[in-house]
Amino acid sequence: MAEVKLAGNRQHRVVGGHPWIYSTEVDEISGGFLPGDIVEVIDAKGKFLGRGYINPASKILVRMLTRDRSEEINREFFAARIEAALEYRRRVVRDTDACRLIFAEADFLPALIVDKFGDFLALQTLALGIDRYKDLIVEILDELLAPSGIYERNDVSVREVEGLPLRTGFLKGPFEPLVEIHENGLGFLVDLAGGQKTGYFLDQRENRMALSGLAEGARVLDCFCHTGTFSVYAAAYGAREVLGVDIAAPALDVARRNASRNGFEEVCSFREANAFDELRALEKAGERFDLVILDPPAFTKSKQALRGAVRGYKEINLRGMKLLPPGGFLVTCSCSFHMREEQFMEVILEAAKDAGRQLRLVDLRRQAKDHPTLPASPETHYLKCAILQVW
Amino acid sequence: MAEVKLAGNRQHRVVGGHPWIYSTEVDEISGGFLPGDIVEVIDAKGKFLGRGYINPASKILVRMLTRDRSEEINREFFAARIEAALEYRRRVVRDTDACRLIFAEADFLPALIVDKFGDFLALQTLALGIDRYKDLIVEILDELLAPSGIYERNDVSVREVEGLPLRTGFLKGPFEPLVEIHENGLGFLVDLAGGQKTGYFLDQRENRMALSGLAEGARVLDCFCHTGTFSVYAAAYGAREVLGVDIAAPALDVARRNASRNGFEEVCSFREANAFDELRALEKAGERFDLVILDPPAFTKSKQALRGAVRGYKEINLRGMKLLPPGGFLVTCSCSFHMREEQFMEVILEAAKDAGRQLRLVDLRRQAKDHPTLPASPETHYLKCAILQVW
Repeated sequence: MAEVKLAGNRQHRVVGGHPWIYSTEVDEISGGFLPGDIVEVIDAKGKFLGRGYINPASKILVRMLTRDRSEEINREFFAARIEAALEYRRRVVRDTDACRLIFAEADFLPALIVDKFGDFLALQTLALGIDRYKDLIVEILDELLAPSGIYERNDVSVREVEGLPLRTGFLKGPFEPLVEIHENGLGFLVDLAGGQKTGYFLDQRENRMALSGLAEGARVLDCFCHTGTFSVYAAAYGAREVLGVDIAAPALDVARRNASRNGFEEVCSFREANAFDELRALEKAGERFDLVILDPPAFTKSKQALRGAVRGYKEINLRGMKLLPPGGFLVTCSCSFHMREEQFMEVILEAAKDAGRQLRLVDLRRQAKDHPTLPASPETHYLKCAILQVW
Repeated sequence: MAEVKLAGNRQHRVVGGHPWIYSTEVDEISGGFLPGDIVEVIDAKGKFLGRGYINPASKILVRMLTRDRSEEINREFFAARIEAALEYRRRVVRDTDACRLIFAEADFLPALIVDKFGDFLALQTLALGIDRYKDLIVEILDELLAPSGIYERNDVSVREVEGLPLRTGFLKGPFEPLVEIHENGLGFLVDLAGGQKTGYFLDQRENRMALSGLAEGARVLDCFCHTGTFSVYAAAYGAREVLGVDIAAPALDVARRNASRNGFEEVCSFREANAFDELRALEKAGERFDLVILDPPAFTKSKQALRGAVRGYKEINLRGMKLLPPGGFLVTCSCSFHMREEQFMEVILEAAKDAGRQLRLVDLRRQAKDHPTLPASPETHYLKCAILQVW
């Protein structure tokens, strides 16, 4: 097994628990290896740090799999990791038949995503080193969970960086990939083959539940509503009227079906529009809402684009606040990793200042507990959800 | 009405929404006033910023009551503020007959605390300017809520800084001040006259609920357990054994009664001990727990004492982790305002490094929603509760 020795002045992060090793942090590599192979990682003094898989084609040279010398990377290893991930969900996930079962680095299985949607699984292997074990992982999942079907959603561009082809298809099946899931007594359609991410925004589940109380009797605006999950929750929590806005007609079709199958076709309506334009138009028309939800797609996927993203977040939050009477509620999200929590809150505060409003923070939330984070790896925390009362 | 003019280069915070004005931020005061009077606050250019009450004896010269020129500080003002506070709790507080009704600055009523415990209220007026309105506030609360009794808990040393006497007693009553509250189907004794704060840690309610799932089947250690509320919740969520540790014998008496009245006298036991010592003793004795709860009192109430506090937090978290098997859960809190969230997480991560353990963050929580915060005023956010899985 090849040995990757870290540079003494650059090993701090990895020693502190971060699972990624960049080539710039490496002093030398001894022994031969093929891309995707398991390697041993040692510190500058030669002390064992762990084992991981290597890929020189990636910006991330090595991703750590274990820090336990006695742990070999074999079937037993993967079975134990997957069982621990399942046991964790049994504890922290309630009242749903859909959740993230394996969240990559945060489940100590870098670049592996497995989501459960009713009796079906969706899977992504986003790095070469984990892709090698795909068949084994599918076998173990099948043994432990006996799903009715498994769908591969490896149509993600990060795979290209790893030298992997983009692919989708049935790993167990075939089956009808439009399935219905049940979350807190509500039914939602999930398109495993064509939906965003692996079909559904599981990470917002607990934030959807946070609408309880706020939505009661409210007129609600759900911006960037996608397939209408926040909208349907708002209706279920007693909203008197919900308007969902999204630019994607196919998502709105699903949103309408989701509203109908839960009996809220009278409460929820959906409008195809650019949310930025619609927010302005609603303000101009003198419309008012008691609760405004802003759950935009990531405005930036890089540090470089952050300034533009800040402008975008400020704009929608400012517009959203203007649609609220004093005491109205704003649920505002950012899923851009590069927009850190503190900066996000500053942008919202700036928007309030421009709008001449005072803010009260009801709760500052994160991704749902089936998407845990590693304190040693800030990259694992990406979703922010601020619930505010606007005065 | 006297006019307080801010210094142009120091008005940023207040203009941005902070409710406190320090004397160092003031350019000049024109007009006469008595300590506790309502004054008008203007910016460096003379623009109206708001009204608040003044007290030159306090470090905080003025606390803002309103930023709305049309709002006079009178009965109507207090009634509207209190009604808004109650309406907010009706939305965000569930399944309990005890909650914080008015959280001072965060309810735009600086230095006023009102807590509800069943049919009774506890009240604090912690600054001269608000103390003046105490009778009026009690009158309005009585009209709106018709409580069976109201108890004054003005035995807080910050009042002395304001030139106010310390006092306790019945504002409506008398009544037996040891009352029972009901939170999520559990009953707890609250001593309105003699308990910590106003009798009970309402701010941890939602964090207690976060034990659900984690406590199931677990052997639980509840350090700094006080009157045993985390302990009783753990038992209710299915813990097989709970050990509560606290140094205060009177609190443990209440803890035992709380365990008994919920039927958990067989599950919960309580030990009078210094938690630091007990954590070491348990480790030495080879004891192991599946869930460790650390909810210490504030280790620091000043910036100056922060270094010592950091040592304290690191010590208990390190010891707590050592009592957990791989995959065990740690619920660790800090209610010191000066220990900011980011630094608290760093301390925990340092402890993990020293303990040779890897951390996974399940959730990073705050004070309950009946204790909202002002984004413009960091002082309003003090409680951190990190839920971690320790590997």
